[in-house]
Amino acid sequence: MATLTARNGVNVEQLIATIGAVQEDPNVAAFTFKASSTWRSGARNEGEIKDFVHAGQPVMRPEAFRLAGDEPPVLLGSNEGPNAVELLLQALGFCYAVGYVYNAAARGIEVTQMEYDVEGDVDVRTFLGLAGPRAGFTAIRVAGRVASPNATDEQLQELCTYVQDTSPVLDSLANPIPVTTTLQIAH
Amino acid sequence: MATLTARNGVNVEQLIATIGAVQEDPNVAAFTFKASSTWRSGARNEGEIKDFVHAGQPVMRPEAFRLAGDEPPVLLGSNEGPNAVELLLQALGFCYAVGYVYNAAARGIEVTQMEYDVEGDVDVRTFLGLAGPRAGFTAIRVAGRVASPNATDEQLQELCTYVQDTSPVLDSLANPIPVTTTLQIAH
Repeated sequence: MATLTARNGVNVEQLIATIGAVQEDPNVAAFTFKASSTWRSGARNEGEIKDFVHAGQPVMRPEAFRLAGDEPPVLLGSNEGPNAVELLLQALGFCYAVGYVYNAAARGIEVTQMEYDVEGDVDVRTFLGLAGPRAGFTAIRVAGRVASPNATDEQLQELCTYVQDTSPVLDSLANPIPVTTTLQIAH
Repeated sequence: MATLTARNGVNVEQLIATIGAVQEDPNVAAFTFKASSTWRSGARNEGEIKDFVHAGQPVMRPEAFRLAGDEPPVLLGSNEGPNAVELLLQALGFCYAVGYVYNAAARGIEVTQMEYDVEGDVDVRTFLGLAGPRAGFTAIRVAGRVASPNATDEQLQELCTYVQDTSPVLDSLANPIPVTTTLQIAH
């Protein structure tokens, strides 16, 4: 049965059941995600992503995902991992792809290829303590490529627009998020 | 000599030289970073981060960093990697740490410990096509911990504020970025 309800590798029955569960109880839609990092030296950090909270209950993954963060030599690093702003771009491509193939599955659209090239402009003057433009990305550009054996170009373009309207990462980058930061001093 | 000019693993002479180079030619501050992703199946994507553009010139890393993206089972994935919004949180912790230790190095502050716990709230109703709050994070909270043998609590807290004012990732999340997205249909 499982293969009958899977499209694009997405279990469509489970997707419909999830939407139904959220309609019945909006609390089922509530997630708190987490990431922690430990500084090693210079620009090098080790990141860990493991547990999250769903509908008020902790969800434990069996193992943590570990990520390396660093800077390239031109930004005084040792090039042992991507830098933080590169991770933002990666996240946008991942988010777009998941949104695209899930919604395609729900609409009966088969996806056979889906790629994203993401790039963003940053001026490091503010980071370096000099007068300059904003510290973060001044612009981000995404170029996607998709192939489908059973959808029209119009359907595929319309889905691209829909995914932008509903993408958690695009919304997080395109609209302001309130961020609160506290620092504890260890003695 | 190198050990004399390194603090927190940061080459302070190179940092000062970099700031001087940018003051002389603001074009040296300009970067375009990139990330690409290839969809595999369901929520699974493979990401690649390799080259970037600095001061108008391409910079090639010898090897690409490869990242796995996926969703946990409750979001219809197979849990083979962190999801996209978790990567955003990881990026914020990495960015804060780099900003903190670089600026601490420039100020003569030794850092012996630096950790960040980042969490953010997301409601997936909009992602699932239902009426709900914004698609992205409604709030992000960061709790940092730092230890230094030669700085006062006031200096360490002030540096935390300074880092927030100059963080590329915080600015990217706290203020809107123009994002343009195009889709090419492969035939």
